Amino acid sequence: MKSHTEYLTFSTSKREEFVLITEQVAKAVRTSGVREGMVLVSAMHITAAVYVNDAEVGLIEDIKEWLRGLAPDKDYRHHRTGEDNGSAHLKNLVLHHQVILPITNGQLDLGPWQQVYYAEFDGQRRKRVVVKVMGE
Amino acid sequence: MKSHTEYLTFSTSKREEFVLITEQVAKAVRTSGVREGMVLVSAMHITAAVYVNDAEVGLIEDIKEWLRGLAPDKDYRHHRTGEDNGSAHLKNLVLHHQVILPITNGQLDLGPWQQVYYAEFDGQRRKRVVVKVMGE
Amino acid sequence: MKSHTEYLTFSTSKREEFVLITEQVAKAVRTSGVREGMVLVSAMHITAAVYVNDAEVGLIEDIKEWLRGLAPDKDYRHHRTGEDNGSAHLKNLVLHHQVILPITNGQLDLGPWQQVYYAEFDGQRRKRVVVKVMGE
Repeated sequence: MKSHTEYLTFSTSKREEFVLITEQVAKAVRTSGVREGMVLVSAMHITAAVYVNDAEVGLIEDIKEWLRGLAPDKDYRHHRTGEDNGSAHLKNLVLHHQVILPITNGQLDLGPWQQVYYAEFDGQRRKRVVVKVMGE
Repeated sequence: MKSHTEYLTFSTSKREEFVLITEQVAKAVRTSGVREGMVLVSAMHITAAVYVNDAEVGLIEDIKEWLRGLAPDKDYRHHRTGEDNGSAHLKNLVLHHQVILPITNGQLDLGPWQQVYYAEFDGQRRKRVVVKVMGE
Repeated sequence: MKSHTEYLTFSTSKREEFVLITEQVAKAVRTSGVREGMVLVSAMHITAAVYVNDAEVGLIEDIKEWLRGLAPDKDYRHHRTGEDNGSAHLKNLVLHHQVILPITNGQLDLGPWQQVYYAEFDGQRRKRVVVKVMGE
């Protein structure tokens, strides 16, 4: 069994920003030398998500607006700690903080429209995603 | 380490349709010969989901109705591309597009009521799910 | 390849209760002897979830209230079976029933605020979570 671990670092210029990371994940897979296996792509913070969907700019704005409806900015109990990012925690939970992608014949085994995104909901500071490849 | 990959193909007669796939996943596990490991079951499209829950017909209709409330049909920005499936993308995100099931003693290690479903939100065309078994 | 399987058992005193389980998962990882790999933490029931987020008491109450808004108690079709836990099934779907955590250098490779929670939505009876470690 082979394994390989990388950490991607993000420091978005906007508080909320979605970043396409498919190629960075594919590169980690190539570096690992794994031909058959899986790669876990997982946000290491609790106000960011990783998801797979379309690289279509309109849809990305639709997703942001939809999440603002499901998890609106309001006065959460969490804000009594001095934080103001309650909605970012809830958006992380809707989208889930991780995906696991199959690797077949040394390649990410994705469908034709599947792209991997890092979804930042409380950025403008240094945050990390762990990419862990496992297989043979 | 052993690995085994299969692709399930679906072409539902209705645009929205949920398909029970537990037995197809169990069969892939048996074919793999893996006794201890995990199996990833992941939609290869961005308007379909894979989830684990109850095989109860009333609940399945409840889930469909609930998703229509969370991600209603409306005029999404995504539709400017000519598509009309914005809500299907959002339903994919709520349910998540994948599950990973433990394999113990050569069997899917599921609880008594856990069943695996393929949830199609934009069907009536050929779509795929990758089933990847890994273990020993 | 090494693998190790444990089952955590919960019988919460309240119907809805969130239980911090990071240390139980870390212990299973230590027991496994796996230095590089992944651990799957997956609810074996369809009315409970496993998620990663903050161990902050206010946020936990925010999450519960938010889920009650997204999946309110009402008269679901599922209740025709005699059950009264339709909302618990839907909350399981929002939060997802599982996470998979990377293991690096023999430790859970989590970010500074990431904690693992078992979220019970229909408790007061014996329920299980499977913890499956895989790696080398």
